[in-house]
Amino acid sequence: MTQLYDRVALIGLGLIAGSMALAMRRAGLAGEIVGTARSAETRATAAEIGLVDRVTETAAQAVQGADLVVLAVPVGAMGAVAEEIAPHLKPGATVTDVGSVKRAVIDAVAPHIPQGVHFIPAHPLAGTEHSGPRSGFAELFDNRWCLLVPVPDTDPQATARLRTLWEGMGANVDEMDADHHDLVLAVTSHAPHLIAYTMVGVADDIRRVTDSEVIKYSAAGFRDFTRIAASDPTMWRDVFLTNKDATLEILGRFTEELFALQRAIRTGDGQQLFDYFTRTRAIRRGIIEAGQDTDAPDFGRVKKS
Amino acid sequence: MTQLYDRVALIGLGLIAGSMALAMRRAGLAGEIVGTARSAETRATAAEIGLVDRVTETAAQAVQGADLVVLAVPVGAMGAVAEEIAPHLKPGATVTDVGSVKRAVIDAVAPHIPQGVHFIPAHPLAGTEHSGPRSGFAELFDNRWCLLVPVPDTDPQATARLRTLWEGMGANVDEMDADHHDLVLAVTSHAPHLIAYTMVGVADDIRRVTDSEVIKYSAAGFRDFTRIAASDPTMWRDVFLTNKDATLEILGRFTEELFALQRAIRTGDGQQLFDYFTRTRAIRRGIIEAGQDTDAPDFGRVKKS
Repeated sequence: MTQLYDRVALIGLGLIAGSMALAMRRAGLAGEIVGTARSAETRATAAEIGLVDRVTETAAQAVQGADLVVLAVPVGAMGAVAEEIAPHLKPGATVTDVGSVKRAVIDAVAPHIPQGVHFIPAHPLAGTEHSGPRSGFAELFDNRWCLLVPVPDTDPQATARLRTLWEGMGANVDEMDADHHDLVLAVTSHAPHLIAYTMVGVADDIRRVTDSEVIKYSAAGFRDFTRIAASDPTMWRDVFLTNKDATLEILGRFTEELFALQRAIRTGDGQQLFDYFTRTRAIRRGIIEAGQDTDAPDFGRVKKS
Repeated sequence: MTQLYDRVALIGLGLIAGSMALAMRRAGLAGEIVGTARSAETRATAAEIGLVDRVTETAAQAVQGADLVVLAVPVGAMGAVAEEIAPHLKPGATVTDVGSVKRAVIDAVAPHIPQGVHFIPAHPLAGTEHSGPRSGFAELFDNRWCLLVPVPDTDPQATARLRTLWEGMGANVDEMDADHHDLVLAVTSHAPHLIAYTMVGVADDIRRVTDSEVIKYSAAGFRDFTRIAASDPTMWRDVFLTNKDATLEILGRFTEELFALQRAIRTGDGQQLFDYFTRTRAIRRGIIEAGQDTDAPDFGRVKKS
């Protein structure tokens, strides 16, 4: 594939940035990949494993001469990073981000972007429960979606190039308005994560059921919750604080439905339960058909012995 | 491995019974495996694919001369099946079940079991979202837990033999009291399933987010909910109706915690969210260490292209 950017700067070296470095290298999309992180330990690890071509101490240094700058820090830290790098950005460069919330990131970052630099918010819908510079892998974005959220007056050519980059890293790309993005993600990601965190917290609290039992017998359903409830705490704290309205709206709808099903259980209304469970089954079929999950027995999990 | 039972009768030919037939055959644990199901279509499919050695039209026929009878029907149907087979059970035989709830099954089945027949309730903690006679596979129970719930005065030798059978099918075996079982499963399975069903139902309801978006962008967390929300509706209706008290208790605790976290979001209490999410991460580590899930990137899922 053609090289798209002579120099890419990754600000933050966690799961997403690390996977981007590996995916860009896999396809030869970038000339030089420069990276930085706030933590000295993260920078040392990234240098040691050769995650990027060059590690810098500061974000200001990293963006020098970069044609593409990727903000890959928790959503709550995006504004401060934008402010720090702004004076050092190369004219004509593109700044993008990978945050899970888009309206708050645009509000925090856009005011700092100088004239002549293109700001194109983005969000790859991919991840695992792991974090840190060792957690990335080149295949993370393969067949996953990346949503571009162009702000008004975004340069079409800069957007097209960023789209090509994401496609080159394996992703499918869609464009979406920021507010709609935040609502869609509240449904498909933010509310489910909070619910999973809550259920795992409840299990941990119940003293009559020991930790050991919760863990031993987790294959009966619980373990699927624990995976998403093991995601990075800083990242998720920021997601909930910055996508507050949409998340609370979906959680309100969730509680309403949950109460209706609890009432059906209490009153013994088997027909209501059966009809509800039949309806939800159809959505699963859609996800399999869309290639966003496997229907392999035991969910395609690798067996451990 | 040594043959443990000369003849085994499977009542019901769904995911669990089918997997038992294949796992028993893999290890040579049973002489003849006889099976039956209420639906003529299921019986025809089982016969066609050779799932068991012999298919009978009725449960009464299936249990004739059987040394082990496995009730593998939805929890709500256990009592009626026990009543039907009771007069036909071989003296000295063992009757067991695979239901997800134990107190209700014991109450429904035990009164029908004749003198001289051993009733030993059991529950293998394994499954997938698939159901029906084609869904079984021999490895389903490998490294999973099976809980035996012996009733008072259960014959120790009959229990030991059933334990050996489950171990021969690949499972680890524990014994547990019925009420404790029902509470542990309410935490690790029943409440999580109801919550997943609810979240998927909510997503389906929200008209501003089209079905297609929910499905396309499901990799962001939602798809893990859809898997468990695709489980067999009849089975799960019966679980909730028969483990009502424990499930409602856990759901009450869940709602309480969820409200606390919603308040933290609303008031912007990032520290509370961070601390909560840090605590739940530790439980995940325990599950990986206990070998009950994989920590492979992308959760060990097979990639679909």
